[in-house]
Amino acid sequence: MTIAFSGTPFLEWFEERGAAHDFRVSRIPLSKLRRWGFEAGTGNIVHDSGRFFRIEGLRVRSDYGAFPTWDQPIINQPEIGLLGIIVRRVGGALHCLMQAKMEPGNVNTLQLSPTVQATRSNYTRVHRGTGIRYLEYFAQPRRGRVLVDVLQSEHGAWFLRKRNRNMVIEVDEDVPVGDDFCWLSLDDTRALLAADNLVNMDARSVLSCLVGETSPPGPAADGFQAALARSYQRGTALHEPGEILSWFTETKALHDVTTRTVPLREVAGWRSSATEISHQDGRYFSVVGVEVEATSREVSHWTQPLIAPHGHGVVAFLLKRIRGVLHLLVHARVEAGYLDVVELGPTVQCVPGNYPDPATRPLFLDYVEGAGEAQVRYSAVLSEEGGRFYQAQSRYSLIEAGEDFPMEVPPGYRWMTADQLGGLLTHNNYLNVQARTLLVALAALTSRR
Amino acid sequence: MTIAFSGTPFLEWFEERGAAHDFRVSRIPLSKLRRWGFEAGTGNIVHDSGRFFRIEGLRVRSDYGAFPTWDQPIINQPEIGLLGIIVRRVGGALHCLMQAKMEPGNVNTLQLSPTVQATRSNYTRVHRGTGIRYLEYFAQPRRGRVLVDVLQSEHGAWFLRKRNRNMVIEVDEDVPVGDDFCWLSLDDTRALLAADNLVNMDARSVLSCLVGETSPPGPAADGFQAALARSYQRGTALHEPGEILSWFTETKALHDVTTRTVPLREVAGWRSSATEISHQDGRYFSVVGVEVEATSREVSHWTQPLIAPHGHGVVAFLLKRIRGVLHLLVHARVEAGYLDVVELGPTVQCVPGNYPDPATRPLFLDYVEGAGEAQVRYSAVLSEEGGRFYQAQSRYSLIEAGEDFPMEVPPGYRWMTADQLGGLLTHNNYLNVQARTLLVALAALTSRR
Repeated sequence: MTIAFSGTPFLEWFEERGAAHDFRVSRIPLSKLRRWGFEAGTGNIVHDSGRFFRIEGLRVRSDYGAFPTWDQPIINQPEIGLLGIIVRRVGGALHCLMQAKMEPGNVNTLQLSPTVQATRSNYTRVHRGTGIRYLEYFAQPRRGRVLVDVLQSEHGAWFLRKRNRNMVIEVDEDVPVGDDFCWLSLDDTRALLAADNLVNMDARSVLSCLVGETSPPGPAADGFQAALARSYQRGTALHEPGEILSWFTETKALHDVTTRTVPLREVAGWRSSATEISHQDGRYFSVVGVEVEATSREVSHWTQPLIAPHGHGVVAFLLKRIRGVLHLLVHARVEAGYLDVVELGPTVQCVPGNYPDPATRPLFLDYVEGAGEAQVRYSAVLSEEGGRFYQAQSRYSLIEAGEDFPMEVPPGYRWMTADQLGGLLTHNNYLNVQARTLLVALAALTSRR
Repeated sequence: MTIAFSGTPFLEWFEERGAAHDFRVSRIPLSKLRRWGFEAGTGNIVHDSGRFFRIEGLRVRSDYGAFPTWDQPIINQPEIGLLGIIVRRVGGALHCLMQAKMEPGNVNTLQLSPTVQATRSNYTRVHRGTGIRYLEYFAQPRRGRVLVDVLQSEHGAWFLRKRNRNMVIEVDEDVPVGDDFCWLSLDDTRALLAADNLVNMDARSVLSCLVGETSPPGPAADGFQAALARSYQRGTALHEPGEILSWFTETKALHDVTTRTVPLREVAGWRSSATEISHQDGRYFSVVGVEVEATSREVSHWTQPLIAPHGHGVVAFLLKRIRGVLHLLVHARVEAGYLDVVELGPTVQCVPGNYPDPATRPLFLDYVEGAGEAQVRYSAVLSEEGGRFYQAQSRYSLIEAGEDFPMEVPPGYRWMTADQLGGLLTHNNYLNVQARTLLVALAALTSRR
């Protein structure tokens, strides 16, 4: 086993991988997409093979939030993809086989990805050969031990009921390391979340499910470190697990959100041109086209539609020490594309520019934007999935609220510990992808470096 | 607190409640339904207020089971109902406030029901008065302690993504007992599952979520009792919890089942007449109309459509002592109406008459039907929900497999303990309603009487 790049060697390797590939992405009008087109009758954007994904319309009626009804384009990709990381324990420390992978929507093209990203059709025909490296480690019969195997959601604002199978497989044997792959310790991998746009969304999603793997606090731990370590212990939480589940059930039961797909040409409030599809107020996102030329992918030249959000997102958990234990302020969030309407998200998750009216401005956004430097325990700009989203970036942060910040919170919010959130991560559709990302950053703070 | 009818007193009270009400149900043609009709354009059966539920068409494409594609009528009732039981501890034993309740589809009209069955619109306007007794115990702010609060599914073969909020609230105060209500110990309530068509489906569903409340085995316990008691203990199972969750995730990820609603008049293979809607082969179920006259309901006279299954169902768990611990053979079942396509069901769940071709006959059905008397640990005929299903009955049983029964089982099946199943019951959409019913019967076997 070739061990662990860390620090400079990793960055040099990563840069070298970037130089080894040629990857050009250019925006093109939707009308110039090849093999993609507007379906007769519906106006939906579909591939002529019927494969990959479709962009359809979604009509939402909701009794929740500032907007009771709206229409929007949405990506419909019903199949469950696979996101998998191979890990190996070396000297007690878990190491992850990570991949330098290019995606057309990435601002910097190359990001650090899981060992495998595959579609369902890839992994169901794995034994017939797919060209996807390491896929056989995730298919039955398996050589390794399953540490993580759970379905988790993607963005409910842009994706209709999309989920991926998140897997971590632990092996005890040597694994041949391909050109675009490297072993990194779990601590190093998590620490790389401090860099802007480096660890991709799929990797963050899988890493989050390893929430239980944290180091005990060192002797020199400060008050924050100690409170953080206690947050990973069982039985330290303000609310009993049953209280949390009851609150989550009640949120689902009391909200009435109905969605149905409609033809894309019928979505109200959106303008379609040969170039792109955009909201009439210029908000939210556009559906755009890109042309890709690559030397590092199975197919070296293709065009595809992508969702291009307007404006950077703000994604933040407020943290607070409660009885000496760090708690995260979790928001039970309604998003139209979630399988089960509600998932647990960060305290704040929005694109501020979408809320110009102060009356609709999301709760706690002002607090996050006004936080002092000492309160910011983590902050970086991270990208959303570059295979579907064009230059979608958000400022992710963990903000420690002061002692004067109230314990009492509005009905849709609850203080929870890292252990409680980790427990829910073994089941599907509790934590959204933004919350999962921030749990990786939180785990990075437990590392003694 | 008026305590616990048990044995003869309960049955006398129950009979007396039946005599106190007048409740007549007669079959009428669909064309004679009042306020219900066939919607223009779609042929869907809808109420003229738009409320209650709709009967629509469902088109299913599946890579699972004997039938790759089919159409069927399905009940679409998107809102989440409430099923709630008030409990109180008396001398250490939990007692349940149960209701004698009439439903038009019940073969015997009156069955034992939860304290409350309410629609979402009932419980969101509870403080404005709904006429539904005890509903205020389940709404915020609550006086009692929440023991159970979880969304659980109903029949995925007849209902589109239907779920109910299952709640148990423990109170310490006196509760005035209405005419149609009585206190029964949890043990007595469970024991009543031995009677045919007595404990209704909604009550069974809520009671199942109290799986943790079992008595320790008595000193005179036989081998079966001891193995059963160990089945409720943590850490006794053949498979690790992670293995079970991974198997469940894999089943969801590998099956491709897509469903979409279609106009009822477009469902292929079904015949619609003024009287009813039936399958062309006479199988599965019909959509029928009933007229109801009652003295015990808010509305005393109404008509409504119901689903009338053809033939009695067979629902059974195979049990096996493995290393001295009773395990249940669980089937990961695909049903088109489930929110998440797959839920865990009993070993066998079918209407045998729907499978005349031996090649499509469900696994283990022959074993269940051929079981010797000594193997039958539980058997009774129980009704499905009488508010939507017309005289839908199944023979529920727990069958102990012999020592020669193989440990190795097909891929869609796993041996699990009662403790493992109980753990999953704190989360939504793991166990289907038939499995939940049999878990109540299993818990009844733990009682020392």
